[in-house]
Amino acid sequence: MDDEYYMRQALMQAQQAFTEEEVPVGAVIVINNKIISRGYNQVEKLNDPTAHAEIIALTSAFNFLGSKYLPEATIYITVEPCLMCAGALYWSKIGKILYGASDEKNGYLHITGNTSPFHPKTELVKGILQTECSELMKSFFRMRR
Amino acid sequence: MDDEYYMRQALMQAQQAFTEEEVPVGAVIVINNKIISRGYNQVEKLNDPTAHAEIIALTSAFNFLGSKYLPEATIYITVEPCLMCAGALYWSKIGKILYGASDEKNGYLHITGNTSPFHPKTELVKGILQTECSELMKSFFRMRR
Repeated sequence: MDDEYYMRQALMQAQQAFTEEEVPVGAVIVINNKIISRGYNQVEKLNDPTAHAEIIALTSAFNFLGSKYLPEATIYITVEPCLMCAGALYWSKIGKILYGASDEKNGYLHITGNTSPFHPKTELVKGILQTECSELMKSFFRMRR
Repeated sequence: MDDEYYMRQALMQAQQAFTEEEVPVGAVIVINNKIISRGYNQVEKLNDPTAHAEIIALTSAFNFLGSKYLPEATIYITVEPCLMCAGALYWSKIGKILYGASDEKNGYLHITGNTSPFHPKTELVKGILQTECSELMKSFFRMRR
């Protein structure tokens, strides 16, 4: 399977968030071509502003693998992670991070600037299915206005 | 009660982490002079590198108050928060953050530099019981070497 396939799986998670009236961000974590965990934003449902897609997917992966580090894993996230999620990804030592759309307001980059918040061995790829990931966010916020 | 009183309560949480062979960081959250939640680092016990004192105390506070924002609350943390915890504190819109010891290796400041990661209305105070908070960390890492 290729990166677009897994990003579409993350988009399905984001679509589920959208359906539940949550900011539509989704994530999946993959090891050896197998999805081991999924997550979507559940801030409103759980009444917890830290219940982001990435945190839910990471916690589920730690539990599933019985490991607190994920160097062999790849995470697909529909939107640029926030600072909190960037920090959580750092702690996980995840092997690779791919995200779709940038998030100029809440993404980590507007805070960290040129200093990478990730583990030195973590690979980073941006822009996979960027348009779809971004459009889902835009239509959510249009609807809410 | 004054800030040192609540920081000593956070130190008791950190001491509990130490006893359980976890990196000794503790936190308490206070509203109207009442402690509404406590947390200590449980990364090893929960096998989850995101199970930091602050995250545990925040999640507990959201549950207790039934609110996802904490503008009236103050958090006392024994050690400078990491990037993930700084991001979680941002999302919580917590009123005030006080921490004891700096953490040059894992604290948020070495990544964010001059850009504050916190909510613009969040007040920040550093250095409460700095020596005690720092000594607990140092003795933990001495012991582990």
